[in-house]
Formats: sequence, C-alpha cells, structure tokens
Amino acid sequence: MSKDSLTELNARLKAFAVARDWEQFHSPKNLAMALSGECGELLEHFQWLTEQQSFEISAQKKQEVAHEMADILIYLLRLSDRLDVDLVNAVYSKMAINEKRYPAEKVKGDARRASEYED
Amino acid sequence: MSKDSLTELNARLKAFAVARDWEQFHSPKNLAMALSGECGELLEHFQWLTEQQSFEISAQKKQEVAHEMADILIYLLRLSDRLDVDLVNAVYSKMAINEKRYPAEKVKGDARRASEYED
Amino acid sequence: MSKDSLTELNARLKAFAVARDWEQFHSPKNLAMALSGECGELLEHFQWLTEQQSFEISAQKKQEVAHEMADILIYLLRLSDRLDVDLVNAVYSKMAINEKRYPAEKVKGDARRASEYED
Amino acid sequence: MSKDSLTELNARLKAFAVARDWEQFHSPKNLAMALSGECGELLEHFQWLTEQQSFEISAQKKQEVAHEMADILIYLLRLSDRLDVDLVNAVYSKMAINEKRYPAEKVKGDARRASEYED
Repeated sequence: MSKDSLTELNARLKAFAVARDWEQFHSPKNLAMALSGECGELLEHFQWLTEQQSFEISAQKKQEVAHEMADILIYLLRLSDRLDVDLVNAVYSKMAINEKRYPAEKVKGDARRASEYED
Repeated sequence: MSKDSLTELNARLKAFAVARDWEQFHSPKNLAMALSGECGELLEHFQWLTEQQSFEISAQKKQEVAHEMADILIYLLRLSDRLDVDLVNAVYSKMAINEKRYPAEKVKGDARRASEYED
Repeated sequence: MSKDSLTELNARLKAFAVARDWEQFHSPKNLAMALSGECGELLEHFQWLTEQQSFEISAQKKQEVAHEMADILIYLLRLSDRLDVDLVNAVYSKMAINEKRYPAEKVKGDARRASEYED
Repeated sequence: MSKDSLTELNARLKAFAVARDWEQFHSPKNLAMALSGECGELLEHFQWLTEQQSFEISAQKKQEVAHEMADILIYLLRLSDRLDVDLVNAVYSKMAINEKRYPAEKVKGDARRASEYED
C-alpha cells in the first residue's frame, strides 16, 4: 500500500485514537465540529490577505497552513471511519455529479454557484 | 497507482478545474472559504442531533453527508495543489507532533484541548 | 440611545476601524471570513463536551466563550456597515419568515431542517 | 425600549423557541454548531467574488446575505441566553482589550494577526 493511500492514513489515525481511548469522543457530531474548528483556523491565515498575497505566503506561514490542512484531513478521515463512509468512492461519485452539473463548455470561466445556473 | 491515492485524485481534480478555466478562481484564499462553506453544510446535518443519533443517520442522509465530505476533500486537495503543499507529508508530520503532545499514557480518556494540558 | 443598541455599537466599531485605517481590509468578503474564523474558535470550546457539559462550563471558559461571541458580533456589525444592511430589520424580517415556515402547532418539539418538512 | 435593542430581540427569540418547545435542542453546543452552519452559508455567497465584487452584489443577493446575517445574530442571541452571557457587556469588554492590543498609532494600516505582532 502506498504511503499516500487514504486507507493507510485512516488505519493509523484510528490506532492513534484507540490508544488514547478517544473514540468515545469521536461521534460524527463532534468530529464535524472539530473539522469546522480547524477550517476556522485555516481561514484566519488568509482573511486579511488579497488573493494574490494568499499565493505568496512565507515559508513559516505555509508550514502552519499545511498543519491546519493536515488537521482537516485527519478529522475528515476519522469521520469517514466513524460513519463507515467510503470517502474515495464519495469523491468519485461527487466528481461524476459535478461533470454533469457543470459541463465544461457551459461553465467555462464562470464560477457562479450551481443554484444560480438554474435561474 | 491505487484508486485511493491522493495524488491520483489531485490530478483529476486539477484537470476538472483547468477544463473549465476555473483555476483563476482557485486562489488559496477562495479555496479556504469554499472549504469552510462545505464544512458549514456538514454541520447542518448534525446540529440538532444527539451524538448517538449522529451515528444512526438514515441511508439518504448518509449519502448527503458523504457528498459534503467529498466536497471538503475536493477543496482541500485543490488548496494543496495551489499552495504546493504535500498534504500526505503534512499529515504524517502532524501525527508525529500529536504523538509527542498527547502521549497515550498521559491523555488516556481525556480530550481536553492541548492548551488546557499546559495550564 | 441605550447601551445595548446595535446602532451605538456599530458606530463605535466603525470609529475603531477608521482610527486604525483598517477599513481597507474590511471588504464584505474578508469580514465574512473573519466572522467564520471566530465561529471556528467558538466551536473548539464545545467540540468534545456533551450537550449537558456545554451548559456547565467553568467561569473562565465562559469568559473566553463570551469574548469569542463578542468577536462574532463585532464582525457581523462591521459587515452590516460595509454592506449597508440594516441588521435589525433583517432579523425582524427573518423572524416573520420563520413564523410562517415553522408554525408552532406544526413543529412543536421537532427541530428537523426546513427542507425536511417539505418532503 | 428601542427596536434595535438586543434585549428586546433576545426576548422575542426566546419566546419563539419556547412556543415551539425548541429549547430542548438549544444547548450551547448545538447553537454554536448552528451559528457556524449559517456562517458557512454566508461564506458561500462571497467565495468566488473579488473583494471589490463583494461590495457590489445585486439587490437580490444582498437580501439573501442580510437573511444569513440575521440567522447568525439569531443563534448568537440564543446562545447568549442559554449561557447567560451578557453579549453587550462582552463586546464592550472585548473592545477595551482590542484598544490596548492594537494601539492606533502602532497598527495603523496593518491588519496582521495579534499573535504576529508579538513576534
């Protein structure tokens, strides 16, 4: 199994939680909250930057951002484990939906929300 | 490359965005916002449920939750691509930090926030 | 004007931003991000607590939570100022909508999402 | 009591919840989640807009944004009620802290995060 496999990451994260007797706190409700909390921390890194500046962050800030992103993936994988959701299948399924909702020739260069296309 | 590889998913998502000329919207700042927006949708599924009920959602709701989770991973991978962050490395690096911050014997069964352990 | 007037708070917050030449950062987009960032911090206080424990937080934690809530109101008022939205009118308007969508006799004791009532 | 009084809004929102027997769902934990969910909806309105565009939204979009903002204030007031937090006092207290942390002459035109000033 390759190192970038979600299955492998998932197994390691579960073992970490089990070793600490933390699964009792890892209800889907709580994990969804923890995931959102980490997203809030991610936002704080970018909130006062211009879009251009958000590409040009310092090496230190990039490291901090990478760790916030890691936290998000960690909670997302924990949630998939606790709900028994196959996250990879879900992504491929959602990508198929998106291919239909947003045909390249129709939405090219236009990022309005899906609901706005239906108006 | 296995299907659950983040590298593979990443490449597909990038191709999807490029085909729609959507990379112009995919600044780190905007992607962090989109990621948080999806987390908000995830929260809404769980906000009035008890923790126990959050495990016992219907098949339909579980499908909806799986798709919100897919959206979160999609934007997280897009962000890693745009910032040139190696997400898998970031997770392993964060896990190493967490192993040190939360030794199993010290935090067993206790999920207080890290800052609270330092009091 | 009473001290708990939103108009009064709004004026003070605007003066604070102007004195620091911070209005240049206070675009609606950026303020929406800052607001969400503060909500993330609020979530972190409650994520591992049971609902019952979330009522019974310590005086110190309550003070921290109160300050996160203050930050949320601060950014919400800044946003209303920058977008020229009458927040009080918006609340009364939304309350009127909610009165119609959720007639007391129909939804008593049931907190499902609005969309689920329409199924 | 003036119409823009938070005390008055608070009383009306409480009556609305009580009439529906919804206080049973309004734990601080759940209300923090609902608040964040609404912030996520707010973000979605702005995520693909430039900062300039976020000032220039259409009347219809502005109405939708105003209602998301109303939802945020509604849940924030409900939370203050359930936790017995004096939100107005909290804002004045937080403003006093901010006056000290960010002296106008020091931070003029600079919006870095507080922690970054301490470096």
